[in-house]
Parts: sequence; C-alpha cells; structure tokens
Amino acid sequence: MSARPPRKSPASKSVGDDFQAIFREATQADLAAIVDLLADDTLGASRERPGEPLDRAYVEAYDAIERDPNNELIVVDTGGELGGVMQLTFIPYLSHTGAWRCLIEGVRIARSYRGQGLGGEMIRWAIERARQRRCRLVQLTSDKQRPDALRFYGALGFVASHEGFKLKLDLADDRDR
Amino acid sequence: MSARPPRKSPASKSVGDDFQAIFREATQADLAAIVDLLADDTLGASRERPGEPLDRAYVEAYDAIERDPNNELIVVDTGGELGGVMQLTFIPYLSHTGAWRCLIEGVRIARSYRGQGLGGEMIRWAIERARQRRCRLVQLTSDKQRPDALRFYGALGFVASHEGFKLKLDLADDRDR
Repeated sequence: MSARPPRKSPASKSVGDDFQAIFREATQADLAAIVDLLADDTLGASRERPGEPLDRAYVEAYDAIERDPNNELIVVDTGGELGGVMQLTFIPYLSHTGAWRCLIEGVRIARSYRGQGLGGEMIRWAIERARQRRCRLVQLTSDKQRPDALRFYGALGFVASHEGFKLKLDLADDRDR
Repeated sequence: MSARPPRKSPASKSVGDDFQAIFREATQADLAAIVDLLADDTLGASRERPGEPLDRAYVEAYDAIERDPNNELIVVDTGGELGGVMQLTFIPYLSHTGAWRCLIEGVRIARSYRGQGLGGEMIRWAIERARQRRCRLVQLTSDKQRPDALRFYGALGFVASHEGFKLKLDLADDRDR
C-alpha cells in the first residue's frame, strides 16, 4: 500500500439514521461478499459466478485493482456486513488543459440496504474522494435498462451529456473458462 | 518503459490509399502537436490552451500518463505529421467474472485527415490492442452534440446501451491557474 497516495481516514457516519457506515478500501477478505453483491442484481445474475471456491479470475482481478494506485475498490462496512461497493478509477488526461478524472463503476448496494439513502452517500463520498485526488470531472455510465439509476444520478447533479457505448469482445480462450 | 507490458510492433499501414500511417505511443516531443489537435475542435477550442510555452499542466498530465502502465497515449504518425490521437485506459474490474476493460477517450483526427477513414482505422487498432491486453469490453462515451461521432461508433459495432453522465468539479485553486 506504500505506493498509494495518502488516504482519507475512514469516516464513520450515520446514513438514514438507521445504521453506521464506514467507507474503506476493500481487502481480500471482502472478496466473496463483494462477488455475492455483484451477483445479487438483475443484470449481474447471469454474468457472475458467486460461491466457493471463488473463481480465480476474481482473485486475479482483485490483485490487479489492489496493485494499481489509480484504482480504489471502496466498500461500505456496516459493522461486519457489506452495505455497498463501488470502484473508483483515477485517470490523467491531456484534455481540459491536463485534467484528472474519476470514473465510477460497479456501484452496488446490498438488497437489505436499498431505499435508505446509502447510494447517495456513496456517490457523495466518491465525489469528495475525487476532489482530494484533484479531479476536475467525475464520470460514469449507467445502463439504460435501469431507469431508477438514471433518475438517481440526475438528482445528484450529473448531466447525461454523452452516449455510453460498449463493445463486447470474445477472447480466444473463453471456451476454456 | 520497462514496467510496461510487451507492445505490438508499430504497424505501417495504408489508410485510404493516400498516406502511410504508423500507430505508436506518443513521446514528449509530440506533446505540443497533440495539444494543437485537441484545441482544433468545436468543443475543445474553449477548454484548451495551445501555444508556446506549453501550459505546465499538459506536461504534468503527459508524465502521469507515461508513468502509468494502464494508460497508453496513441498517435497516428503520418511521416512527421500527427494524423490523430487517442488515449486508451486499461481497467481491471471484478464484474463480468473479473474482466479487464479498455476505455477509449480523447479521439481526435487532424482536420486535413478527416473523411479518409482514419477514425475507423484508429478504433479498429484500439480494439485489437484491447484484445492483446485481454480486455472483454471496449467502452467509450461520445458527446450527444456530435451526431456524426454517434453514427460512427454505431457503425463500428458499438452499442449505445448506457447513458454517459458527467459532473464537473471546481477545484479550490482554479482561480490561480
């Protein structure tokens, strides 16, 4: 962790007056719970492989995120349980007179914590973290099949100024996995 | 450069039968020409500061990109001139059973090279590079104010499945810059 920039101290905060939530970076001990969270989702159900033993691809991906000082996997620790997860990627760009951006991806909230304002807390935390990292822009894409999420980001001040394009690639050895 | 993964050998290829184009990583010697390219654009004109001496924020951003093994600033060298530029960011994610993605950003084509198929060559090159880096998804956002670009990415097989949200941040010392 020594190569990483200084971190914000974990903040204990009340969310929705119902529980205390600590925002912190994920550790490998969180990995199985994070995968369960990714899988417990309409779109994620078909594309994740939860359960033990954990697919080694998850461990490799976690290690790559952990090694990279410009990627932070953030979990909301509600005291032993995971309330939510998101990944922040900090990217240096030449455009906008040389500006860093923060890309938010993979925002997921545990079923039992939905509808209590935790999502808003997470995005506000991410915006604050982006400011600490000197970003001038926070960006994310949200699936058009998630109308509630689209309204949610709009209400937080995000502007849907762009189309989000995706192209899936088939890798040659996909059949072996 | 030793920390970076193996690179594809620069490929000399004919684009539109009119000129030879070599795709390669940018060097610091390209920086002023790249900034000129970013500024020579409807949306970029107001947000870039081209000209000598180059704003040090560009040099700092270039250095950050160059240091990061997961960021590649690619230029199209047409023999002394820059035909185009784009930035590729490779990001490890847990979702999709632990998959890397390639994010394409800042695609710009020099005015004198537009309408000759160079943009398509650049995106196809980026897709091939994403495959080499074991990515399962290539993604990008395109401003809704650029209808030609939206059609262009659709024609290349990208699906506009997501809304692209942006939130601008004002940094405390922006007045000093």
